[in-house]
Amino acid sequence: MPRYRLIVEYDGTPFVGWQRQDNGPSVQGALEEAIRRFAQEDVHVQGAGRTDSGVHALGQVAHFDLGRKHAPETVRDALNFHLKPNPVSVVAASLAPDDFHARFSATGRAYLYRIVNRRAPPALERGRAWHVPYPLDAAAMHAAAQTLIGRHDFTSFRAADCQAASPVKTLDALTVTRAGDEIRISAEARSFLHSQVRILVGTLKRVGDGHATPADVARALAACDRAKAGPTAPPHGLYLAHVKY
Amino acid sequence: MPRYRLIVEYDGTPFVGWQRQDNGPSVQGALEEAIRRFAQEDVHVQGAGRTDSGVHALGQVAHFDLGRKHAPETVRDALNFHLKPNPVSVVAASLAPDDFHARFSATGRAYLYRIVNRRAPPALERGRAWHVPYPLDAAAMHAAAQTLIGRHDFTSFRAADCQAASPVKTLDALTVTRAGDEIRISAEARSFLHSQVRILVGTLKRVGDGHATPADVARALAACDRAKAGPTAPPHGLYLAHVKY
Repeated sequence: MPRYRLIVEYDGTPFVGWQRQDNGPSVQGALEEAIRRFAQEDVHVQGAGRTDSGVHALGQVAHFDLGRKHAPETVRDALNFHLKPNPVSVVAASLAPDDFHARFSATGRAYLYRIVNRRAPPALERGRAWHVPYPLDAAAMHAAAQTLIGRHDFTSFRAADCQAASPVKTLDALTVTRAGDEIRISAEARSFLHSQVRILVGTLKRVGDGHATPADVARALAACDRAKAGPTAPPHGLYLAHVKY
Repeated sequence: MPRYRLIVEYDGTPFVGWQRQDNGPSVQGALEEAIRRFAQEDVHVQGAGRTDSGVHALGQVAHFDLGRKHAPETVRDALNFHLKPNPVSVVAASLAPDDFHARFSATGRAYLYRIVNRRAPPALERGRAWHVPYPLDAAAMHAAAQTLIGRHDFTSFRAADCQAASPVKTLDALTVTRAGDEIRISAEARSFLHSQVRILVGTLKRVGDGHATPADVARALAACDRAKAGPTAPPHGLYLAHVKY
């Protein structure tokens, strides 16, 4: 059976998240329905990362198997046709080896978090970025971020419902940069805990607005206590940017 | 009477355009309604440019007069409060001299046009850019654009319903650049004819896809005949970026 690998872009706003659930439309469900219409086959689509409701993707990766072989370009175009009007787009499709697994073969994931940092709410980027109306110090946020790099027990930065076997992860990069009114936070790791990036961002934001120092962030990490980190930043500023294999 | 000057950002998607009309919601109407709720005054809001339905703004400029004086920051924040849930945001408000006129005092207008140039439709930029699924040669488009710079009779690039007294305009800049999958076209002039930027873009796109040459574009300009230029590009790729005074 041919295995297909997809790079998928989506606007997370109308979805309950990547994963199929009973309480509303999912990105996974939209893709599986498009494959059904195109190939008349019931398939399971496996994603690299289970993004939460409202979280976007620029480069989610997914795989699935079909009984019949089609040219990858045909798969891409047919899925895009059948995905309408969902805000989900198959940017690329390719044939993958049988042992390729979107989730377990991944060796790195990159997330982007966008903050619109100005008094006026965003009109064009509404639902695409977190609006923080008071000034944030991006340089202080970046300095605090550097205390989190490396292999640590990230219990303080883990949602209560996180199902990972271990809270130990290696954070490869966490950078905070400003371009005009926008603050961009990039996070890279082999894998992340549930809500880890959003809790990292919520914690750094407290440094940006002067409620915490970089040393406080280092202490929050060492405490291994979710209550010591900041609140979970809202989902609509987060993008699954890229998955590495 | 104090005169206020606003810088306004909006998503043009849900509007019939800037100007108040009987057939649906307008940006001007949304602003006038927000002013009414804030100040209990019926005012006329004058914009620098009358953007069409679906056209966005990053930096529309508008002015209006109020009977009572308020701090500009109060006006900005109150209007943003009362504008909800419209995708319209007052980025800045300031007091302006009595003779300031958003339209007639303007000495330059800058528009941005965005094309997503890749096979897959955009999921995140839907309604924010024109999707052209086959490759465009941005360098050829830029070369063609340079034949249009300067003071010319732009009859070929003017909508049939254009009400300008003269078709003669001076195009100060028209640049075409590519960044990855996105082509950005910037246009600058003191003022533009109705649909001029969209017809310029529609004409350059025909160069980009090989249906016309830069010399054809120069001939279309010289012909002073709307039929010799390209089709009008769709509104949702266009942004009123900046107004100069």
